[in-house]
Amino acid sequence: MNIIINPDFSEFENICKRPSFDQKHLSSGVQTIFDEINRRGDQALIEYTEKYDNVKIKSTVLNLNDEQVEISSALKEAIQVAYQNIKTFHEAQKPLEINVSVMHGINCSQKPIPIQNVGVYIPGGTAPLFSTVLMLCIPAKLAGCKRILLCTPPDKSGNIHPAILYAAQLCGVKEIRLAGGAQAVAAMALGTAEIQKVDKIFGPGNQYVTAAKQLAQNYGVSIDMPAGPSELLVYADSTAISSFVAADLLSQAEHGSDSQVVLIATTEKMVKDIFNEIESQLEVLPRKNIAKEALKNSKFVVITDASKAFDLINHYAPEHLIIASDSPEQYVDLILNAGSVFLGNYCPESAGDYASGTNHTLPTNGWAKNYSGVNMDAFYKKVTFQSITKQGIENLGQTIITMAEGEALQAHANAVKVRLNQK
Amino acid sequence: MNIIINPDFSEFENICKRPSFDQKHLSSGVQTIFDEINRRGDQALIEYTEKYDNVKIKSTVLNLNDEQVEISSALKEAIQVAYQNIKTFHEAQKPLEINVSVMHGINCSQKPIPIQNVGVYIPGGTAPLFSTVLMLCIPAKLAGCKRILLCTPPDKSGNIHPAILYAAQLCGVKEIRLAGGAQAVAAMALGTAEIQKVDKIFGPGNQYVTAAKQLAQNYGVSIDMPAGPSELLVYADSTAISSFVAADLLSQAEHGSDSQVVLIATTEKMVKDIFNEIESQLEVLPRKNIAKEALKNSKFVVITDASKAFDLINHYAPEHLIIASDSPEQYVDLILNAGSVFLGNYCPESAGDYASGTNHTLPTNGWAKNYSGVNMDAFYKKVTFQSITKQGIENLGQTIITMAEGEALQAHANAVKVRLNQK
Repeated sequence: MNIIINPDFSEFENICKRPSFDQKHLSSGVQTIFDEINRRGDQALIEYTEKYDNVKIKSTVLNLNDEQVEISSALKEAIQVAYQNIKTFHEAQKPLEINVSVMHGINCSQKPIPIQNVGVYIPGGTAPLFSTVLMLCIPAKLAGCKRILLCTPPDKSGNIHPAILYAAQLCGVKEIRLAGGAQAVAAMALGTAEIQKVDKIFGPGNQYVTAAKQLAQNYGVSIDMPAGPSELLVYADSTAISSFVAADLLSQAEHGSDSQVVLIATTEKMVKDIFNEIESQLEVLPRKNIAKEALKNSKFVVITDASKAFDLINHYAPEHLIIASDSPEQYVDLILNAGSVFLGNYCPESAGDYASGTNHTLPTNGWAKNYSGVNMDAFYKKVTFQSITKQGIENLGQTIITMAEGEALQAHANAVKVRLNQK
Repeated sequence: MNIIINPDFSEFENICKRPSFDQKHLSSGVQTIFDEINRRGDQALIEYTEKYDNVKIKSTVLNLNDEQVEISSALKEAIQVAYQNIKTFHEAQKPLEINVSVMHGINCSQKPIPIQNVGVYIPGGTAPLFSTVLMLCIPAKLAGCKRILLCTPPDKSGNIHPAILYAAQLCGVKEIRLAGGAQAVAAMALGTAEIQKVDKIFGPGNQYVTAAKQLAQNYGVSIDMPAGPSELLVYADSTAISSFVAADLLSQAEHGSDSQVVLIATTEKMVKDIFNEIESQLEVLPRKNIAKEALKNSKFVVITDASKAFDLINHYAPEHLIIASDSPEQYVDLILNAGSVFLGNYCPESAGDYASGTNHTLPTNGWAKNYSGVNMDAFYKKVTFQSITKQGIENLGQTIITMAEGEALQAHANAVKVRLNQK
């Protein structure tokens, strides 16, 4: 266990370093996939599916029927509860039209208009991420996006996991395509016969998916945010409960061997207690090897002074931040950079990962300094409108002319003059 | 003059094509600039300034004092009027904290937190873009960004244009650095001794600046939006006034030879009237050669049916959209993709470019399908918080456990179980 005790400010940079995440070497392979999808469309997609997902499909189109959904009623109920909470919290975020009369005769407004075509990517693999279906499709539907396309790779029998299907149906998703990896992203960005081009791509994925999302931006498609391995920082003061903190750190560590886990505690004793709890909880975990690997990159820091601790936290800008304390409110105003914050001893990250209502698609790798997690805004453009009456342009005209001439743009001034000089 | 009359849907794609805008050939040169700034900091910056701006400066720091500001009182007053309108409209957009009790014991909130360090780039060159200073620094200040850095290249005597300085002072900008082009962007992204690293970079620029902003994203910095040449689409119904529309199209065309100008009118006669007006207004413009060049790329389209016309408009997704009509409201609900919309015969684009209150930093090149123009949101991250009580986790715990186990993430379930099983 590597404990860093009361580090100097000069050490912050080093503590905040994430394992490097270089995708440059992937880009030529991903470009080839884009070129193939561009040239040969669905045929290329079907071939990639055979190569990477080991299943031969005839079409990427998934015909939806209710019989396919076979999941336990307990899971159905859980998904319904999560659905309701996520919907409630996102509904409250709906942006409203803003209307301002700035001067007599001049009215400016800002109107949220849904992005028309959104694509949601849900990875396959061992963990069927039905929770991500909820996190991305509920706000898309609430925003009124005209078309919601969901792409996910088929399993070896050509199906998708019934829980993913159930979540999609609950969200009202009608268009599901069997496609995974970089090729699915390429198809959403370029369009094929079966997969119509989208305007914005959402969703997690491995490094190939991430590289493909970055490349997609060269084709006029926007993405939710840059992605990196998931991370959790726990701030534990003297009122934290060590077994809870240990469980939270492990829940992050089991995500992948590249997951980031950081603990900042006010005392060395707390760090040691938490570490001992980790050791005892770890052994029974099915994914303990992954978690152990992730813990190797973990950092345990003791910082006595809260203000200095939050300087480090803001410098790190964690995706998830747990304030393990029985009075967490005292720290809230110190938080400047974080994706999602969990307040108090009874607030595990798992709650936000699944069911409390907040979104779990969040900025990693320090991007919490400048990116929000996915929220309702992500599904809209805010378009400005202005109405100016004849009286309005008479009021503001000279201002515009003076400024346009100040920038040496005479035609800009003329556009006002023709209106003022109208006979 | 090339008039396209009632095009078929199949022709839309072609009408919407922008002149290609390939920056790949610039990236190695811009990468070299980043490497040099990274290695040699301000010294490299000063050398680039000598090379590209033809002036030898000792330091990039501009010492601010009032004497430098010598502009006419007419321009000062105009800037003040614009300042007030922009402030009024952006203040109305301030995002509020959202607080939702989703279940008993579970509270979720979303809190807008300002991006701490923002960098604003203002190009030099012939036109001193003091209007852009207002458009970017007013919302940054309103949002409460801790630090607003403004970079702009010095003129040949080592100064900056007094109108830029005046606008910056009015906005309360205290930190101005003499640096231009890709090297200024590199310095803001990487940090030097004189230019501290920022979290997000805003502002227009030539293709080198654009390439540098794209590259900056590899260094943990976000940007306002991808940039391309400016563009205007005017929709003119039979109540449009041809001389006004002509002046608007010319105001866009004078921006640069790569500016995009599109007219969609309901009748062929209107197109011809507007074209004749353009010819007569063009001759007296100081920047007529630039405008003529831009008009070569322009498209004049006749579409009788309004619904079809707006299909094309939404497909094109113009940066600026003027509805030249005496009853523009009838078309508002047809608009799905646009950056900023100007309603009515007395509403020139110039109004929004300078002084009505809306922002002029807008998505070009079709990005209006998935990007908003700069608005208050651009200066915040929306961070989610959740508080869960012991009762709350008892209420929601089983839901979380069931979902976590459904995704085969046992440690996620454990983080709840340790709390439920607490003795």
